[in-house]
Amino acid sequence: MKASQFFISTLKEAPAEASLASHKLMLRAGLIKGVASGLYTWMPMGLRVLRKVENIVREEMNRSGSVELLMPVVQPAELWQESGRWEFYGKELLRLKDRKDADFCMGPTCEEVITDIVRKEINSYKQLPKNFYHIQTKFRDEIRPRFGVMRAREFVMKDAYSFHADYESLVRDGYQPMYDAYCRIFDRLGLNYRPVAADTGSIGGTGSHEFQVLAESGEDVIAYSDASDFAANVELAPTLPLSGERAPAGKALEKVHTPDVKTIAALVAFLNVPVEQTLKSIVVEGEEEGELVLLLLRGDHEFNDIKAEKLAGVKSPLAMASPELIRAQFGADGGSLGPVGFKGKVYADFATEKGADWVIGANENDYHYTGFNFGRDAAEPEFVDLRNVVEGDPSPDGKGRLKLARGIEVGHVFQLRDKYSKALNASFLDNNGKAQIMEMGCYGIGVTRIVAAAIEQNNDERGIIWTDAMAPFEVVIVPMNYKKSEAVREAADRIYAELAAAGADVLLDDRDERAGVLLNDSELLGIPHRIVIGDRALKEGNVEYARRRDNEPQSVALNEITAKVLEALKV
Amino acid sequence: MKASQFFISTLKEAPAEASLASHKLMLRAGLIKGVASGLYTWMPMGLRVLRKVENIVREEMNRSGSVELLMPVVQPAELWQESGRWEFYGKELLRLKDRKDADFCMGPTCEEVITDIVRKEINSYKQLPKNFYHIQTKFRDEIRPRFGVMRAREFVMKDAYSFHADYESLVRDGYQPMYDAYCRIFDRLGLNYRPVAADTGSIGGTGSHEFQVLAESGEDVIAYSDASDFAANVELAPTLPLSGERAPAGKALEKVHTPDVKTIAALVAFLNVPVEQTLKSIVVEGEEEGELVLLLLRGDHEFNDIKAEKLAGVKSPLAMASPELIRAQFGADGGSLGPVGFKGKVYADFATEKGADWVIGANENDYHYTGFNFGRDAAEPEFVDLRNVVEGDPSPDGKGRLKLARGIEVGHVFQLRDKYSKALNASFLDNNGKAQIMEMGCYGIGVTRIVAAAIEQNNDERGIIWTDAMAPFEVVIVPMNYKKSEAVREAADRIYAELAAAGADVLLDDRDERAGVLLNDSELLGIPHRIVIGDRALKEGNVEYARRRDNEPQSVALNEITAKVLEALKV
Repeated sequence: MKASQFFISTLKEAPAEASLASHKLMLRAGLIKGVASGLYTWMPMGLRVLRKVENIVREEMNRSGSVELLMPVVQPAELWQESGRWEFYGKELLRLKDRKDADFCMGPTCEEVITDIVRKEINSYKQLPKNFYHIQTKFRDEIRPRFGVMRAREFVMKDAYSFHADYESLVRDGYQPMYDAYCRIFDRLGLNYRPVAADTGSIGGTGSHEFQVLAESGEDVIAYSDASDFAANVELAPTLPLSGERAPAGKALEKVHTPDVKTIAALVAFLNVPVEQTLKSIVVEGEEEGELVLLLLRGDHEFNDIKAEKLAGVKSPLAMASPELIRAQFGADGGSLGPVGFKGKVYADFATEKGADWVIGANENDYHYTGFNFGRDAAEPEFVDLRNVVEGDPSPDGKGRLKLARGIEVGHVFQLRDKYSKALNASFLDNNGKAQIMEMGCYGIGVTRIVAAAIEQNNDERGIIWTDAMAPFEVVIVPMNYKKSEAVREAADRIYAELAAAGADVLLDDRDERAGVLLNDSELLGIPHRIVIGDRALKEGNVEYARRRDNEPQSVALNEITAKVLEALKV
Repeated sequence: MKASQFFISTLKEAPAEASLASHKLMLRAGLIKGVASGLYTWMPMGLRVLRKVENIVREEMNRSGSVELLMPVVQPAELWQESGRWEFYGKELLRLKDRKDADFCMGPTCEEVITDIVRKEINSYKQLPKNFYHIQTKFRDEIRPRFGVMRAREFVMKDAYSFHADYESLVRDGYQPMYDAYCRIFDRLGLNYRPVAADTGSIGGTGSHEFQVLAESGEDVIAYSDASDFAANVELAPTLPLSGERAPAGKALEKVHTPDVKTIAALVAFLNVPVEQTLKSIVVEGEEEGELVLLLLRGDHEFNDIKAEKLAGVKSPLAMASPELIRAQFGADGGSLGPVGFKGKVYADFATEKGADWVIGANENDYHYTGFNFGRDAAEPEFVDLRNVVEGDPSPDGKGRLKLARGIEVGHVFQLRDKYSKALNASFLDNNGKAQIMEMGCYGIGVTRIVAAAIEQNNDERGIIWTDAMAPFEVVIVPMNYKKSEAVREAADRIYAELAAAGADVLLDDRDERAGVLLNDSELLGIPHRIVIGDRALKEGNVEYARRRDNEPQSVALNEITAKVLEALKV
């Protein structure tokens, strides 16, 4: 492609409304253009990137055996009412009425439509398993659309849905092949990502992984092992019991006056003890009316309510105890609580099991104990996992230690089980002729979001840095003085023709602009390979070649540059 | 692709709601599936066809120099208010409100969005001309969605928009290249079509062609030459003055009593004269208040109001005269009118100029004249074009004679001129530094509709007949007894592998179905090339090969079939 036949429109400064690096750079590089809040036009340069992502997604979905179809953007309310999501979904579902006043919505996902198709098309176990996908425009009426295409209202998503005769098939023929396809997709895109065990959120069902692209600006925090594939959302990563013996008690239990000390920070400051020596008490409601459960964890650790909610005897959903009940059962208020004298169930976090001589609330306002020891000063509690992991914790799979990183969710695989197939009665006859409800999985990839996530992960002060696979063009030829220097023009045209003939995706920047503009644009646009052609080097038979991350270009003989670039593109 | 890894779902009978051949066949062949009125899922088999059409459109648009981008489906009301279409468009524009109660619509076309982009991006004549296109889901809230994807509410359209410094550039750099690209597209798709000079309708501007696929079921009637490229909507095709001398008057003017004769049909029956010998009178309002104009044309010809409206002295828009005014100025009522004694302007159709001895109203109720002659019995009228062309009329370009046919509009090229660029103030600085409004063209192709139109044009009692270019698969291999006969399976697998390796788009129908089902499906699906493999022929080293239109298959040696099919695909 020659720039004169294309459309390049770059900006020196990003518009003020953009805060995120990817949003700024996408606007500056002219990849997108805002139409309204959360609505964007993909400009020619951006669309090339989007299509490359889309094609890789399509190739790997096809390879995995998923079959492509295309469901409509506008969907009838009836199907959403049947699944219950018409009421449940909330305001993110953009509802609309047609000219006859019938209700429709713009699809944010397509569980209902595909399940409706499948219940009509598939009626025997012989037709299962089946996996369908489409790549289609979706709409979510975000309350605060922001960060450009990262959190837009209209976006392109690849969503796949698999249908199975039983759970084993869901895992073996649906979930696992999709998980593997996702890994191939993000590998091919050249992204640094982690498949992360995730909670299943509002979409329902059990068993899911998020695919997170690691980037400073990510909204999610994930924990991953430095020595294995383990990764999980920080709230879901388990901690392990400590090994070894408990430290021996060294001090006697002593009640100290701690006036106005209500927090761990105040306690540490007042008594001048290490925070790791303190225990904090959290009191939640038990399953029985009026029953309280005491949860203990180290003062420096973060309480994890998802884990607490799953403990035997603890009310679900988790409910903090009322001040009245606490006062009645502990004889003190929050800030001075502890296990000594408490009659109810006590759980303590694994991290506290081997310690001794703790500082803890004395169940008397303005008093704490020092030298508290489990077993000696109160009954042994049950030791469980109660906290968020921290960097350096051992990885739950026993391999290496955990690191924390922020991530951008770009894909999600879900075991929906029978949530939708039951609501819409998607059944089949098994090999005994008996009607059974199908098992179902769903698998999404945010195609437009991937573009932004890749930029978040790969950019510098000069602009975007694309991998070869995602770049709008793999190679840019920057001729100095294309219009006026015949030698430059001839060399540029020849290299362009050679690279294009060999199948490289090459841009010849023949715009009549100053050299500085062309060079800056090539860096802002993030083209991975650049060939600069100028009269001076040309006289010695050379051109300049640089990869986008290089600090200095290298001099390459004119008659070797094509082969060199083609070789580099193969890597 | 093997059928077992794909999804084939055919029906013996089409659902009752389908009336059009293409709608029935698309449902029976499982190309589409209804989701709601005018909303369809493109099933895997149909999507393959859609993508092939899309790719040919994209390739030819790129070749023509148009640059692809992607505008959003949902568009803000503000832009539509600026162009005036928010009020003007009517109920086909699906309006909606977001969660903040802001107004949006689902785009039926994108003149506003692209003009908004261009007015922000382009400000110098040096950046012109420019042509952008996208292939995107559109929505029109049709009052009566019908005929499947032929007139659906949600559909895929390719729309392009070109911007120019002046009208000459619009024609030279926009309109003509698009016209040519459209011809290449429809040629490659293998459609029998005509580019037809068209009225510009509600979208505004002047100068347009429709691309009509010829098919019995088409909603438009077009006139085309049997000896040249001339084609026009029947209402817009001009008629020519007759050559030669007028026939001499042979009869005297005679007033005859024609009681209760109010129509040409009644007149012809009552007097037993050929209809070609009669003249009908149409009275319309003139430009001046109270003025009437008389229009005369042959009794068997169809009046054309578009042509009449353009005549000097005729009120525009055309208004039929009131009975009161007619009675006052003619002294008679409609059904008995004529030029004798009428004082106002008289136009007569070209086809009446050379005739003599006409039968015509006598301006006295229940009376007509026979033996009426222009010049002798009334002043010579002005002879003009007043009627629709009929089959056999000379072609307006002087080459051959006209034929009439019905057509399905699948493309449209428009010279919008400054309709949108003026409303949205899309201006540029010319080479004198003066601000000018851009000239603009728009160019649409109904991508989903093409699929239906192609089927309307190419089907038989057995099913669809695809061209190689549009077929979901170019070749189908139908093995008889694939599961049980090792010889058949081996031959089928080998031919499949050979054809696929050579780049052919081949389907191996390995479904465990009876031979009759597989053969019928291959014809219903319209795959252009079919290879049938059975044990009996195989023993003699042969397979059967047939093109979809063939009545009888031919026997081909097993070791020659691959080469034969590949050769056929090149044609």
